Amino acid sequence: MAEKRYQRKIYLEDKPRRDAKQEILDAFQLASESEWIPTGDALGRITAQAVFANVSMPHYHASAMDGIAVNAEETYEAHEQRPLRLRLRDQFAFVDTGNAIPPGFNAVIMIEHVHVIDDETIEIIEPATPWQHIRPIGEDIVQEEMLFPQGHRLRPADLGALLAAQITRVQVMKKPLVTIIPTGNELVAADDALAAGKIIEFNGTVFANYVKEWGGEPNLHDIVKDEPESIKAALLQAVESSDIIVINAGSSAGSRDFTVHVLAELGTVFTHGVATRPGKPVILGKINQKIVVGVPGYPVSAYLALEWFVRPLICKYLQIPEPERQKMSVKLGRRIVSTMGAEDFVRVNIGYVNGQYVANPLTRAAGVTMSLVRADGLLVVPPEQLGYEQGDDAEVELLRPIEEIKNAIVFSGSHDLTIDLLSSQLKQQRHDMKIVSSHVGSMAGVMAIRKGEAHVAGIHLLDPETREYNISYVKKLLSAQDAVLYPFLKRTQGWMVPKGNPLKIEQISDLAETQADFVNRQKGAGTRILFDLLLKEQGISPEQIKGYDREMFSHLSVAAEVKGNEKAAGLGIYPAAKAMGLDFVPVADESYDLLMTKDFFESEQGRWLVSVIQSHDFKNAVEKIGGYAVVSQSEPIFFEAAKLR
Amino acid sequence: MAEKRYQRKIYLEDKPRRDAKQEILDAFQLASESEWIPTGDALGRITAQAVFANVSMPHYHASAMDGIAVNAEETYEAHEQRPLRLRLRDQFAFVDTGNAIPPGFNAVIMIEHVHVIDDETIEIIEPATPWQHIRPIGEDIVQEEMLFPQGHRLRPADLGALLAAQITRVQVMKKPLVTIIPTGNELVAADDALAAGKIIEFNGTVFANYVKEWGGEPNLHDIVKDEPESIKAALLQAVESSDIIVINAGSSAGSRDFTVHVLAELGTVFTHGVATRPGKPVILGKINQKIVVGVPGYPVSAYLALEWFVRPLICKYLQIPEPERQKMSVKLGRRIVSTMGAEDFVRVNIGYVNGQYVANPLTRAAGVTMSLVRADGLLVVPPEQLGYEQGDDAEVELLRPIEEIKNAIVFSGSHDLTIDLLSSQLKQQRHDMKIVSSHVGSMAGVMAIRKGEAHVAGIHLLDPETREYNISYVKKLLSAQDAVLYPFLKRTQGWMVPKGNPLKIEQISDLAETQADFVNRQKGAGTRILFDLLLKEQGISPEQIKGYDREMFSHLSVAAEVKGNEKAAGLGIYPAAKAMGLDFVPVADESYDLLMTKDFFESEQGRWLVSVIQSHDFKNAVEKIGGYAVVSQSEPIFFEAAKLR
Repeated sequence: MAEKRYQRKIYLEDKPRRDAKQEILDAFQLASESEWIPTGDALGRITAQAVFANVSMPHYHASAMDGIAVNAEETYEAHEQRPLRLRLRDQFAFVDTGNAIPPGFNAVIMIEHVHVIDDETIEIIEPATPWQHIRPIGEDIVQEEMLFPQGHRLRPADLGALLAAQITRVQVMKKPLVTIIPTGNELVAADDALAAGKIIEFNGTVFANYVKEWGGEPNLHDIVKDEPESIKAALLQAVESSDIIVINAGSSAGSRDFTVHVLAELGTVFTHGVATRPGKPVILGKINQKIVVGVPGYPVSAYLALEWFVRPLICKYLQIPEPERQKMSVKLGRRIVSTMGAEDFVRVNIGYVNGQYVANPLTRAAGVTMSLVRADGLLVVPPEQLGYEQGDDAEVELLRPIEEIKNAIVFSGSHDLTIDLLSSQLKQQRHDMKIVSSHVGSMAGVMAIRKGEAHVAGIHLLDPETREYNISYVKKLLSAQDAVLYPFLKRTQGWMVPKGNPLKIEQISDLAETQADFVNRQKGAGTRILFDLLLKEQGISPEQIKGYDREMFSHLSVAAEVKGNEKAAGLGIYPAAKAMGLDFVPVADESYDLLMTKDFFESEQGRWLVSVIQSHDFKNAVEKIGGYAVVSQSEPIFFEAAKLR
Repeated sequence: MAEKRYQRKIYLEDKPRRDAKQEILDAFQLASESEWIPTGDALGRITAQAVFANVSMPHYHASAMDGIAVNAEETYEAHEQRPLRLRLRDQFAFVDTGNAIPPGFNAVIMIEHVHVIDDETIEIIEPATPWQHIRPIGEDIVQEEMLFPQGHRLRPADLGALLAAQITRVQVMKKPLVTIIPTGNELVAADDALAAGKIIEFNGTVFANYVKEWGGEPNLHDIVKDEPESIKAALLQAVESSDIIVINAGSSAGSRDFTVHVLAELGTVFTHGVATRPGKPVILGKINQKIVVGVPGYPVSAYLALEWFVRPLICKYLQIPEPERQKMSVKLGRRIVSTMGAEDFVRVNIGYVNGQYVANPLTRAAGVTMSLVRADGLLVVPPEQLGYEQGDDAEVELLRPIEEIKNAIVFSGSHDLTIDLLSSQLKQQRHDMKIVSSHVGSMAGVMAIRKGEAHVAGIHLLDPETREYNISYVKKLLSAQDAVLYPFLKRTQGWMVPKGNPLKIEQISDLAETQADFVNRQKGAGTRILFDLLLKEQGISPEQIKGYDREMFSHLSVAAEVKGNEKAAGLGIYPAAKAMGLDFVPVADESYDLLMTKDFFESEQGRWLVSVIQSHDFKNAVEKIGGYAVVSQSEPIFFEAAKLR
């Protein structure tokens, strides 16, 4: 067992992504199949052949109006001064819109222009021209006309055109069957109990749903153990029964990464490793006529690799071009450093603030699913580029509709659990508004407002001199722009400790004395500023605190860390401790306020946000959580740029 | 029966569309319902509540690398000059990516930096820092963190985040049940035989599929007769069982338009007629808590009305904002005249020619389904505007992805059936290229090239002086720009007459003598120019030709007209006559050539088009149709702007 580890292949290729893709596209020569299905079921399907009309529409000369059908030549005498009388049956017939024009007639006069004399007689005062108000045969669709070329994706209205032309069954491309094989001894089904080292298998479900969206038919295989023989058996069976095979994980070069060896044994390996970050450990190969795509286990890498390599195969099978994502130009709110020689796929949040779209990178870690869930766009840094400077313009591919991005309220600063509640209640009132928040800490929140990256920031910054919250920081840091500090909450900070408080942490000196594993917050977080102030007041140096350098980015993250360790402690707010089932020892009350740009405060979105905050529903919900008092009855404080200069 | 006709209500309201919509939105107060479904089935569904994580991800400290887990403090002595040895189990443990960090260890060293001495011993030359290469608990998702707010549409990656947080069932909005009632005595099912005056019921299928796309659950009712009692019964049943009701046709003010009367009897009518063209005859009302939308029978009006009034109701039920269509700015290739006081929805084709997007209106007729199928965009002319001049900039809503519009080869000019074939064969070779054609006639085709509205035009223009085709027209009309005339086909024009040629039409004088119902082509069509020349040569005046003023826009349309009438005749090409089962009497051979802009001819698309034309496959397929000879071995003729001035 130990020996086997040393035989691992340590280095992967760095093949350009486009070359790797072209190779498998060229190798994928499977004949596409088609099928005849009822037209009513064909939404979203791709036509396999050009489609020609079976009948014309209309298939007879049809009245385009409610009125009377006449023979135009018999109406030429009609004049305002000399009304012309026509007799029912031989000289006119009543027709409704869509009726066939009776034989012998060739024009329609609108009912509004007809004066009825009696049941059998009418009068007109204007002649008709031949074919007026008649929809001729084939006005809409002419028999034998081509309705759709090959390769057309059928939309709802298209189905109408097909049925109108009496095409009740349509030949469409079959959906390619894509078998997805999850491998890994660590994987368990979502319903199973979770032990340390075990991971819920969820990539397979994600893959299956992407395949569905892209027009393929997914087939999700059971979890396969990391054993060469099991992988081999699953692959052989999949090659037999499906068109494209995806095997998840085992694509790197670790001691349990067998996929590449099995693939080489059964067929051909084209690529092992592409020049992208994330997404490098990809395997591309072929067994018989079937392409096998081995994708990495980390979710972000996996989903990107699926899009790079599996989607083009599905499109080739369906004989359609690969759809492109909508792109837009953004200004970069932060510097982005990239690796030379590899394409970098940076997930970004985009905010529409002060009339421009500003993008900020999310975490780069390939394992962080939520970074893809939260991303508004993908910034692709080409291999030859080292990155971007703050303020550069760059093009991003959008992962959300642009109007969703445009309408989002960009929330920055410190994390508080009531912001989720605020977000939900706002959304209930206004379905088109939503809060998009990133937890960067109070100081970074003020800076985000200053740099035009956010509309609102939650802050709780204690001034050691004045013992006042927030105001002095806003004055100092936002001297050049108008802003509004909106009083929001009073909340309690305290020691978050395991149930029963085993180390008996009551004050800050207890942390040093018990050598507790302290879990700290990042620099610039309001809680970190409070902690550092407490240390200073008690004359304790950071070196005396074990774990002082271990920084987490939210109250919940600290609480989650504390939960797993009997010797741990952290500083944070009551609801986070409560959510994780921890004990809580109060330390200080603080003001958590909302800093807004003046433009936002005065905007429709700003007014809605404030009205939700002031509502009874919101206050009641917050107070139910415990550890909070809503202070929204206080007046907002306005800071004017001019006065501060 | 006749009396009843006179009781029709002739005039409808002209209510602004937005007011009409707001009224039903306000009146639609049905409580939305939600349901719990397996996460794996939730693609595209809308979250009914904010979703919070059940577990953290990772839920243990996990190795982020393949390597060894160590206690960082025990590695501080390691140095390149003084390698440090560590013993398996008490000083280090092998870990793969994703493994749990064993108790007592707090850092991971990558396998690449480990020197293996024997099965029990390794050596390192660099210290580890605490927590390096470890994914801490909750790095991706922290337990109790809000994953999604209420009202979020779940995408594939979102399902992964839910499953990772061990949420195996998710609460989503129920799909509102939309019952669709097609009414009309003229309606038959698509499979039924078609008599004159009968229409295939296809709107219901289109509605059902739109409802599906918009997130509702459609329920397509059987066809209901135009009888007040039948309509009443269907409506009452629908109100009982569904959330929203759509009733198709009977929404105007004709003698058989009962819907508004039935609705008034059962509930409330808010609106009868909106200020839009097309789409005016809409009925909006309410029975109990259910909104009833009566939409017009003409397909284009119907689909627009559905989008204006039914989609917002579905979105309100689902508590999501109404999605907006992508918009873009275009230059108008033609003047558009609009009615004052009504919003005008003009379907347009958009071509990307000479670096700009040029839009041209399609037919305005509300009954022409294909105009919606063929449209690239919708130009909405506001009620207070009278239209646009040629060359104006205007904003259009896109009905197709922009890259599809950008990649389309815009084909104008005369209609020939081989263009459909060319389109299909090109698409087979290059899935991302397609031909979009409008049949406007040869002269209009040359003008489209001149005005930068098209890339290619099919033309067959006989010069009465030189008896030569096309060249003199290009010289005269395209003097200011570079163009290429690509020799394409020789084809035969002839008399298209009913099977057996009952009137014995052999030459043009027979048309006058037999007083045949001639079906003419529009002015500027090559075939019209040929016909007018034949008349002149034979000294026959247009007045002698019955039906001379009756103009159709394509060979197939003429053939379709001829087919239905034993006394009819037309001039056109052999394959059109063949397609409709007509007899064909040859008159003249002509050259049908492709006029292209020089830029297009030299572009990648132009080169592909020419290569398909020159292929054996294409030639064989054309010659199989009959009546054609492909002449693509001749050299293209280049016209240079400079020389022509």
